[in-house]
Amino acid sequence: MKAVRLRSYNEMPVIEDVPEPSIQSPLDVIVKIGGAGVCRTDLHIILGQWAEAMNQSLPYTLGHENAGWVHEVGSAVTNVAVGDTVILHPTPTCGLCRACRAGQDMHCANSSFPGLDSDGGMAEYLLTSARACVKLDPETEPKDVAALADAGITAYHAVRKAIPQLYPGTTCVLIGAGGLGHIGIQCLAALTATNIIVVDRNPDALKLAEQLGAHHTVVADGGQVDTVQQLTNGGADVVLDFVAEEGAENEGFAMTRSNGSYFVIGYGGTLEVPTLDIISTERNIIGNIVGTYNDLAELMVLAQNGKVTLHTNTFPLDAAVEALEELDAGRVRGRDILVP
Amino acid sequence: MKAVRLRSYNEMPVIEDVPEPSIQSPLDVIVKIGGAGVCRTDLHIILGQWAEAMNQSLPYTLGHENAGWVHEVGSAVTNVAVGDTVILHPTPTCGLCRACRAGQDMHCANSSFPGLDSDGGMAEYLLTSARACVKLDPETEPKDVAALADAGITAYHAVRKAIPQLYPGTTCVLIGAGGLGHIGIQCLAALTATNIIVVDRNPDALKLAEQLGAHHTVVADGGQVDTVQQLTNGGADVVLDFVAEEGAENEGFAMTRSNGSYFVIGYGGTLEVPTLDIISTERNIIGNIVGTYNDLAELMVLAQNGKVTLHTNTFPLDAAVEALEELDAGRVRGRDILVP
Amino acid sequence: MKAVRLRSYNEMPVIEDVPEPSIQSPLDVIVKIGGAGVCRTDLHIILGQWAEAMNQSLPYTLGHENAGWVHEVGSAVTNVAVGDTVILHPTPTCGLCRACRAGQDMHCANSSFPGLDSDGGMAEYLLTSARACVKLDPETEPKDVAALADAGITAYHAVRKAIPQLYPGTTCVLIGAGGLGHIGIQCLAALTATNIIVVDRNPDALKLAEQLGAHHTVVADGGQVDTVQQLTNGGADVVLDFVAEEGAENEGFAMTRSNGSYFVIGYGGTLEVPTLDIISTERNIIGNIVGTYNDLAELMVLAQNGKVTLHTNTFPLDAAVEALEELDAGRVRGRDILVP
Amino acid sequence: MKAVRLRSYNEMPVIEDVPEPSIQSPLDVIVKIGGAGVCRTDLHIILGQWAEAMNQSLPYTLGHENAGWVHEVGSAVTNVAVGDTVILHPTPTCGLCRACRAGQDMHCANSSFPGLDSDGGMAEYLLTSARACVKLDPETEPKDVAALADAGITAYHAVRKAIPQLYPGTTCVLIGAGGLGHIGIQCLAALTATNIIVVDRNPDALKLAEQLGAHHTVVADGGQVDTVQQLTNGGADVVLDFVAEEGAENEGFAMTRSNGSYFVIGYGGTLEVPTLDIISTERNIIGNIVGTYNDLAELMVLAQNGKVTLHTNTFPLDAAVEALEELDAGRVRGRDILVP
Repeated sequence: MKAVRLRSYNEMPVIEDVPEPSIQSPLDVIVKIGGAGVCRTDLHIILGQWAEAMNQSLPYTLGHENAGWVHEVGSAVTNVAVGDTVILHPTPTCGLCRACRAGQDMHCANSSFPGLDSDGGMAEYLLTSARACVKLDPETEPKDVAALADAGITAYHAVRKAIPQLYPGTTCVLIGAGGLGHIGIQCLAALTATNIIVVDRNPDALKLAEQLGAHHTVVADGGQVDTVQQLTNGGADVVLDFVAEEGAENEGFAMTRSNGSYFVIGYGGTLEVPTLDIISTERNIIGNIVGTYNDLAELMVLAQNGKVTLHTNTFPLDAAVEALEELDAGRVRGRDILVP
Repeated sequence: MKAVRLRSYNEMPVIEDVPEPSIQSPLDVIVKIGGAGVCRTDLHIILGQWAEAMNQSLPYTLGHENAGWVHEVGSAVTNVAVGDTVILHPTPTCGLCRACRAGQDMHCANSSFPGLDSDGGMAEYLLTSARACVKLDPETEPKDVAALADAGITAYHAVRKAIPQLYPGTTCVLIGAGGLGHIGIQCLAALTATNIIVVDRNPDALKLAEQLGAHHTVVADGGQVDTVQQLTNGGADVVLDFVAEEGAENEGFAMTRSNGSYFVIGYGGTLEVPTLDIISTERNIIGNIVGTYNDLAELMVLAQNGKVTLHTNTFPLDAAVEALEELDAGRVRGRDILVP
Repeated sequence: MKAVRLRSYNEMPVIEDVPEPSIQSPLDVIVKIGGAGVCRTDLHIILGQWAEAMNQSLPYTLGHENAGWVHEVGSAVTNVAVGDTVILHPTPTCGLCRACRAGQDMHCANSSFPGLDSDGGMAEYLLTSARACVKLDPETEPKDVAALADAGITAYHAVRKAIPQLYPGTTCVLIGAGGLGHIGIQCLAALTATNIIVVDRNPDALKLAEQLGAHHTVVADGGQVDTVQQLTNGGADVVLDFVAEEGAENEGFAMTRSNGSYFVIGYGGTLEVPTLDIISTERNIIGNIVGTYNDLAELMVLAQNGKVTLHTNTFPLDAAVEALEELDAGRVRGRDILVP
Repeated sequence: MKAVRLRSYNEMPVIEDVPEPSIQSPLDVIVKIGGAGVCRTDLHIILGQWAEAMNQSLPYTLGHENAGWVHEVGSAVTNVAVGDTVILHPTPTCGLCRACRAGQDMHCANSSFPGLDSDGGMAEYLLTSARACVKLDPETEPKDVAALADAGITAYHAVRKAIPQLYPGTTCVLIGAGGLGHIGIQCLAALTATNIIVVDRNPDALKLAEQLGAHHTVVADGGQVDTVQQLTNGGADVVLDFVAEEGAENEGFAMTRSNGSYFVIGYGGTLEVPTLDIISTERNIIGNIVGTYNDLAELMVLAQNGKVTLHTNTFPLDAAVEALEELDAGRVRGRDILVP
């Protein structure tokens, strides 16, 4: 089958032929890919930034944001059957460790992360496991929802964690209205009555943000911290930072009010904060990674009810490099999806 | 009356005569001081580190950790009467703002912080308000409990926030077994069944830590991060950092496991963390400042039940500078208390 | 001034002249009433059902749902000034007890409940306290919002407590779409993405419910438990019972699924449940009374943003008995408001 | 193998020979029983009280509280191996439904309950699944810990849920210091600093309660509600009712203070409460059933640290009826354990 393979760091991946995956254990599931999202993390991977954390051996297939149809199942699989339409939680988990038993899928002690540490879904078929499959309405088109598998779950997870702090009268600043952020805005609007301020460099992204539920938008042109401070009378209760690099990380913390929380969702930068500033205002810095299986299932409910809609552009698998280049150049509104 | 006055930054305070405070508003309370704690924050104040945040005008009286007896009350005070033994919440609050109405005293929009932004309790009398007074058993000696008013409440507040993460089987690392830390250890032992590891430079402090409930102690001699990583098999669920300066802040974060939380309680250093490290492990950095009125009241219950005992050394008011110098030299085990 | 006075139980109140209230303590506030809601609780009071719990001495003035303008303030009042438009939390609280210090206003150890245990707001002026006043935009008409002071806060409080259980994919059943219920529906729609099912005897109330955000409506004609069981595939995650009398209470519990919660908000009936049914399904029964000061402030934000609108009918003070009779006869859609 | 079989309701079970269980699916585990607890629920089962809820077909083997050694495993089992010492969560779960994915094992949509709806552990071997096995230190004697598998997990689960309400200064009443209650007392003492009051009919049980951590004990001789009201100045913050029959259920609710919670853990009686009493005090009634897998794992940590010790009496399997009769007669202190 065709697959988008990373052969060496700092070079674009290539499309090449590899063997189809096969069932190895009773809980394995093979999915025929209907859509695989292209994510900023793929760019980070290509640059080698995840090499140490994930211990990948090259070459391997990219793609950690996948949806499709069940193609084959192991003997102990009971929750899905061949032909089912599914969206995939990004990390197949063991179901047996403390974290899995607490519903904290992303902290599974024995999980893999296809597309980061093993073959991913930018291919015709993907090997995953029963516990990664969220069964969908058979009429759902995988390519229409694939972006929810990673961009979506990550944005939803952060928003859901922030809900208790976002009662009426509060303000939430969202930095970065791109692939994840444009979903985050819709989750905020669906799940809270908070006042939503969106910050982005790109005026087009801010236009989209307004259509999706932002109450105020702020162009990140250098004065964004002051503007947010003024709009919020001293800082936002919650800041959701979908960028967290190139200075956004320290600006995001500076936009957070006393007793508020700065949620780190993007990455790439380095946070540098005097501990006096943390304690004198009792602010929190909250890490976020992907989300739980139930987060993904809940997000699919929002999507099916029309409360979260995706802005996507589809590309054939062969155009993977083109899609990655578009993203790198900052020309993508919403999310690019590869369709094998 | 005599008072310990800071006249200029970077110089030790002096003991001098000042007028006694008088009732200004119907909710005011004047307390005859029975004990005023000497805190590392006093050293920070003297160095001018709080000048900007607190906007103090010099000279003024130090002392933000106070207990004593009610000496005079305003016309609308109903919760305490002249002669009552009281310990004082460090920040007299308005009782009317959103934060006060949510029980978040330390985020009151209209509070003062005697000893930081107005005259404190290193004096014979202190002006405070009805809402700052926690009434005590009349047999309590103020000097025996004064250290709970700031060191105690701060340690208790952080521990109480951490309880949901400290179920049986978890590990909590506590950095710094000094004035606050030695109370924190006892709070952890009283309120959780977590495994307690205490890290300190000073072997004597670690000996005290063991007596107070630490299950393991680690000398901070340079290898403490590795030692904690080994003891915890990859990091502690919660790290309570009562130091947070001179490198402890970054070590404390490094001692925290995936999905864990690093609590900043001390201050002075600068945290420097790549956002990738925050998100890839979904760790949190939690700010902490003082505590709520109810935190202090709860801590007094622990103290009265013998679950928290203080290690204190008393000094007359005239020896305030000596006490400050002892603290600065790292020669204090537990807490120094001035008794007017 | 004119006031609606209850002279003896089981008789309608009378409108008579009484002295205006006067400031008694530094924190007192006198409010010129702009609107006073008529509540089912007033009918219960007239029947003597609150006599024991509230220990009222007759005669006294009814009216526990009030808004208006500040007319006079005590010497220590700082949060409102003469002329301010205000809505009143129903229970003036001490601000000093454990419950007040935790933000649990309705559990204040020293509160009063004007209209239940002392003179209420069905009059030209009402004596209350600084801590009961929520300051409003000066353009707000008190009669337009008065119903939020009790019906609104109570509905909001229950919904807010239920939020953590009402993630996407869940179902919430709301029993009784009257004065409180029609606000509850709007709060649910504003703060959650849950599926909302409304149950009421009255088809007109159900029509209103649909306009306000209900996804399904069920006529309470005897088959409502079965209908809800079918619609929810075994019961709702949360049931909010604004009736809780005449059998609704046991039906409401029966509509609740395993691991779900039945919220009691109305009253008058008697819940009768085998403990085996409680434990075998691990269901909860949650009491609800009024709400916190911050609940009311948050609700006013929803109202000002147009997310909660009231259906009210106004009556002059002299027509209080007529308004009570309308309510008793079940002819009120939304809420009746007396305007002095 | 020998097994304790229930042949018909209202008759004592008989010990008879049945075939050994065999592996049916890749995730099955067969455990050689080392200890099987005798529980009041077994008496309720014999009386047919669970017949409807559990839909049992007779005859079948009793025993829902089991520990032992892994005897055989299915092909996909990865968490335990033959020879491992294990304690068994009472309900083997699917690991795939919403509840399992949230860590709510006891609400699994596809679980079984061996000993209630299928063959249990009062036998030489038991068929269970990988997800039910908690691996223990190999030196643990199954008979010493078996009672933690059901009595223990149930008590622990209820206490853990109550922790947020049991801060210093609160009071917890525990009704029934028997098989579950004597574990509950120890969990309370290990995990909170609350004031513990134990109520029981039996003076010997109260003596044991004092040794295990009760601060006060009250003989249930008719005046227990008044006594608790006096001791607590109006009711306990939390009441844990391990009896919930023969009137204890309504007394337990009456012992609960405003804003407090009454936890139902035992069963058999019928709760009868006016909804006015629920709302006027905003009290909660909290259902409890078994606990999560992680609850059991956490409890084993407490047990291994000596913070929870069991009072057990062992009987050979052949003496099962005698053990049941002892329990029925109220002659058991702690828990009876069958050892095959």
